[in-house]
Amino acid sequence: MRFFSDNAAPVHPKVMTAIADANQVDTAYDGDQLSQRLDAAFSELFEHEVAVLWVSTGTAANCLALASLVQPHQGVICHREAHIEVDECGAPGFYTGGAKLMLIEGEGAKITPTTIEALLETIRDDVHQVQPAAVSITNATEYGLAYRPEEVGALGNLCAQRHLGLHMDGARFGNAVAALGCPLADITWRAGVDALSFGFAKNGGMNAEALVYFDPAAADAARYRRKRAGHLLSKGRFLAAQLLAFLDDNLWLKNARTANEAAAIIAQSAPERLLHPVEANEIFIRLSAAEAAALRAQGYDFYDWGTDAARLVTSWHHREEDVQPLAKAIAAL
Amino acid sequence: MRFFSDNAAPVHPKVMTAIADANQVDTAYDGDQLSQRLDAAFSELFEHEVAVLWVSTGTAANCLALASLVQPHQGVICHREAHIEVDECGAPGFYTGGAKLMLIEGEGAKITPTTIEALLETIRDDVHQVQPAAVSITNATEYGLAYRPEEVGALGNLCAQRHLGLHMDGARFGNAVAALGCPLADITWRAGVDALSFGFAKNGGMNAEALVYFDPAAADAARYRRKRAGHLLSKGRFLAAQLLAFLDDNLWLKNARTANEAAAIIAQSAPERLLHPVEANEIFIRLSAAEAAALRAQGYDFYDWGTDAARLVTSWHHREEDVQPLAKAIAAL
Amino acid sequence: MRFFSDNAAPVHPKVMTAIADANQVDTAYDGDQLSQRLDAAFSELFEHEVAVLWVSTGTAANCLALASLVQPHQGVICHREAHIEVDECGAPGFYTGGAKLMLIEGEGAKITPTTIEALLETIRDDVHQVQPAAVSITNATEYGLAYRPEEVGALGNLCAQRHLGLHMDGARFGNAVAALGCPLADITWRAGVDALSFGFAKNGGMNAEALVYFDPAAADAARYRRKRAGHLLSKGRFLAAQLLAFLDDNLWLKNARTANEAAAIIAQSAPERLLHPVEANEIFIRLSAAEAAALRAQGYDFYDWGTDAARLVTSWHHREEDVQPLAKAIAAL
Amino acid sequence: MRFFSDNAAPVHPKVMTAIADANQVDTAYDGDQLSQRLDAAFSELFEHEVAVLWVSTGTAANCLALASLVQPHQGVICHREAHIEVDECGAPGFYTGGAKLMLIEGEGAKITPTTIEALLETIRDDVHQVQPAAVSITNATEYGLAYRPEEVGALGNLCAQRHLGLHMDGARFGNAVAALGCPLADITWRAGVDALSFGFAKNGGMNAEALVYFDPAAADAARYRRKRAGHLLSKGRFLAAQLLAFLDDNLWLKNARTANEAAAIIAQSAPERLLHPVEANEIFIRLSAAEAAALRAQGYDFYDWGTDAARLVTSWHHREEDVQPLAKAIAAL
Repeated sequence: MRFFSDNAAPVHPKVMTAIADANQVDTAYDGDQLSQRLDAAFSELFEHEVAVLWVSTGTAANCLALASLVQPHQGVICHREAHIEVDECGAPGFYTGGAKLMLIEGEGAKITPTTIEALLETIRDDVHQVQPAAVSITNATEYGLAYRPEEVGALGNLCAQRHLGLHMDGARFGNAVAALGCPLADITWRAGVDALSFGFAKNGGMNAEALVYFDPAAADAARYRRKRAGHLLSKGRFLAAQLLAFLDDNLWLKNARTANEAAAIIAQSAPERLLHPVEANEIFIRLSAAEAAALRAQGYDFYDWGTDAARLVTSWHHREEDVQPLAKAIAAL
Repeated sequence: MRFFSDNAAPVHPKVMTAIADANQVDTAYDGDQLSQRLDAAFSELFEHEVAVLWVSTGTAANCLALASLVQPHQGVICHREAHIEVDECGAPGFYTGGAKLMLIEGEGAKITPTTIEALLETIRDDVHQVQPAAVSITNATEYGLAYRPEEVGALGNLCAQRHLGLHMDGARFGNAVAALGCPLADITWRAGVDALSFGFAKNGGMNAEALVYFDPAAADAARYRRKRAGHLLSKGRFLAAQLLAFLDDNLWLKNARTANEAAAIIAQSAPERLLHPVEANEIFIRLSAAEAAALRAQGYDFYDWGTDAARLVTSWHHREEDVQPLAKAIAAL
Repeated sequence: MRFFSDNAAPVHPKVMTAIADANQVDTAYDGDQLSQRLDAAFSELFEHEVAVLWVSTGTAANCLALASLVQPHQGVICHREAHIEVDECGAPGFYTGGAKLMLIEGEGAKITPTTIEALLETIRDDVHQVQPAAVSITNATEYGLAYRPEEVGALGNLCAQRHLGLHMDGARFGNAVAALGCPLADITWRAGVDALSFGFAKNGGMNAEALVYFDPAAADAARYRRKRAGHLLSKGRFLAAQLLAFLDDNLWLKNARTANEAAAIIAQSAPERLLHPVEANEIFIRLSAAEAAALRAQGYDFYDWGTDAARLVTSWHHREEDVQPLAKAIAAL
Repeated sequence: MRFFSDNAAPVHPKVMTAIADANQVDTAYDGDQLSQRLDAAFSELFEHEVAVLWVSTGTAANCLALASLVQPHQGVICHREAHIEVDECGAPGFYTGGAKLMLIEGEGAKITPTTIEALLETIRDDVHQVQPAAVSITNATEYGLAYRPEEVGALGNLCAQRHLGLHMDGARFGNAVAALGCPLADITWRAGVDALSFGFAKNGGMNAEALVYFDPAAADAARYRRKRAGHLLSKGRFLAAQLLAFLDDNLWLKNARTANEAAAIIAQSAPERLLHPVEANEIFIRLSAAEAAALRAQGYDFYDWGTDAARLVTSWHHREEDVQPLAKAIAAL
């Protein structure tokens, strides 16, 4: 059984059905009936008027958001291990026209007002140095931790004071919400977030993510940028259908809970091995090469994480009976 | 019945089935089994070793191709009405880092060695002027004409002499091949084409296009550029599945033929109205505002094309019995 | 004697003296005493509060201005023969991140509200097409014509209505002002111009141009962009010194008048040969190959302008006695 | 007396004279007689055939060089305190189209094959991560240390093995050569350097730097990029004149020696205060706030360097009698 990425999981049957149902003649691009329903549907979910653009990848969502928040000569503050820094092949530089990622440290890939302020103090206020214009955080973080409402709010306050935009990479936003059990609003617009990459692909989707602007006017330029980046699909209805399927009856939240519960079961099997608390659907454990080989011999796939450590990721399709054997196998090591 | 775009058509059932069949756990991005089969499958189709990248849109395919062929300070020669100039919101400028489209005229949106040479003569060979490094043609053209093998070959010869790369925007490549009845090789690599955007979305696909490099080594950088543009989908298997479904039993060619035949039926109904010969699946006809209104009153949708003209586009799902009534309606105007 | 470009002329002695006088220890970049005086000096000249950045070339001034006025996904309307289109090797694409130049025609390289509106009508208001955000005009034009206050004002009005910025490439701004005899304000801020590239290099300077923002706040981002483009010279005082020398006692205007008068003398020698009215310091005349050869044999250098035509450019150092022989030589052809 | 930057120094009289002598009618841009002599003059200096482009700033020289060596989706390895990272407002991102600076540590702002290899090991060889394509070093470094021939050679060997280009930021190249007393070749092309930003502005120039390509063919594209960046001055002869004046009788080396000797005098006054060995013309010393105030009260200007430290920079115009009083003042603290 594979635990190396939630990207490797199948698409949820309800999403597949929605895609099949969308297969009819309709207007092209985002003029179709499904795409036209997105703003209202997400506005209801967030209890706030939002504008939503579908895109096919989290990288596109993240980088369109960043391009909305910074000029080419400015910078984006993020964690040193942020996906935008480590795993997008320089896409932020491409989309923003060369803006700079300004890196800070933080346990579990979290950043705080304190670490941001420490960075800001090192930047001279003159034209020789890139001045930051935005902060980007990942929720849940790259190590599976959820930023709590008060944590996001503290960052939002600082951003407001320092005239910085605030972007949230929510590749695993559903998992974060499932972990926190709070209203979506509390970790987004109410806390000062300007733009959210709301991920669905890792949560049972096929190839649809939602780029959410909490100030709808800010989405206007992004629509041009999306087209210009080749991300305005001609049959966008198949992406809209996925997003609507996820909102229907909160499928996104149910899937995320399933994944989180699977992760919790694995985590409980070996609390002493955990490198980070397991809040969402990623488990980072100490694991020697011999132990890793032993698990793999039993049919489990996962990533090595540096030396003597491993990352396992659960997904919506990992039922309790799927992960219990893995949990026992780890406990038995 | 809608004739305003082949983008508005449904996805072909065989493609839908292939997508459904691809819904299983597999490696993420393009490491999956389906994606891994593409190079071989397309190499067989083209009778030549090629490297193929799936992308979600024609704009992305076109612009990744152009970025492979020109440096930011160079130019791309194309027709004034080329899709890359008129309908991609400046995407070539984005992908190439600001390269310039250098526009020439030509009947039916076709360009020729003569018009290219005339343009080249106007460019001073000094650093003050942008120097072209590539030519991009659309086959079938924006007016539904197919470049014949000898026409592409003449362009390819000129490009070789002038050290220009040659890109083919094949958003309706299938329709062109169906119209010409020639081997694919004859209008691509054998004629000097370096990169082809092989379109499937307008031909019954959902959201998959193939970017084909006839020199496989040229694809290496494009893989990084694809990721950097946010076009490396995490579940790429669903795109690969579409492409393979199209290659299976030449579905792409059958669909294109169906569309072309539907267009021919409409064209034959009103030869005196035709603004361009109908070779592929687009019909441009003279049509007064009153006539257009009359057709629309009968339930036919299509685009006005300037004043007193209209564009109708057929697709794989337009059967003879679907278009005969329209043909009669036009004939009866 | 050389008439092929005002770029080829020597630097005016007063400018050389000012450069020599600036050769002392001072703060680096633009913190020096001379640079600090520029805003006030130009504000007085324009009868309006302006912010001024020195740069070394007109291309840099033009493109920094354009980058202030358009986003990368937008466009700049200009004449087909505008310097930014024809002679800057794609610099606007580089500085703006890929924005598009949208070309229109016009006698003498002039554009009008009518031609702009005709272009605007061809652009669909959707995300597939680049939307213009600015207009750029050259004053004096590439054919040596001066836009009059009412002409600039009409363009400014249209720009205001259509939410377009207005940039003026004033590589030969001094020659235009000398030709018009109007206050500078009347063809700049009072007429709706947002940013002016005020050229001095062609008018007796060494390597200093002034980028003038009529809304000083708009200059803030440009200061970062200037540094980022490598145009913040470490010893900026030598550029500031040139600009101040030109403002002193209106040297810029005197030089421009001298050049214009020289051009007028030549023009009067052959009114029937003129391809454009001679208002500033450029003369475009019909001239056969044999006639051109005859003039060159007498020691006059100039550019051929296509076939059977030539361009002659006068400069501040062409005294009446320098050009009278040329005028006679032309008359005698 | 000012010691805060060699940028603040006057221009050397011989350079001023050369500028004055260049003030005559000549061909524009880089077609003039002086510019045409540069390749030969620098080739003689380097004992190697080189191509040389003048530019006005070190930032332009550095970033044009980097754009020659990396594609937009690639990276440049440099020290965390490199000028390109810290003091150019993101210019490398602008010029390269968004390439990434990949930072490593190292005493005195030096990098080594070991630190580069350690970085390379952290980069996965897949399309999700930016792959480096070049290394950039500064000689003398930002802390005034000179890379020795064997040090550059070791870096050059590694670059050759790893297919990385090698750029040298020589803003203070003269000072490095003066410190090392070696042939220029030994720390440039013979050691594997592909492109050198040879700085003159900090060494007594007005506004001319030389971008040197050790493979002349590599300069071809750079000439277009220079124009496109607005760095092709219309009266380039004034830049060429400066460079030639520096080569004449090795003025550049004499000036650098003078500056280095002045630095040595200061360094010897307080060896126990030195934060780095003083090899070129920069002195970094421990200095309390009170001590700094005391020095400033005696008329000495310099930069604070963080807390309780200062940077002093000497230049060609600091004679022994100018710096002895400062040396004594420091010794007396």
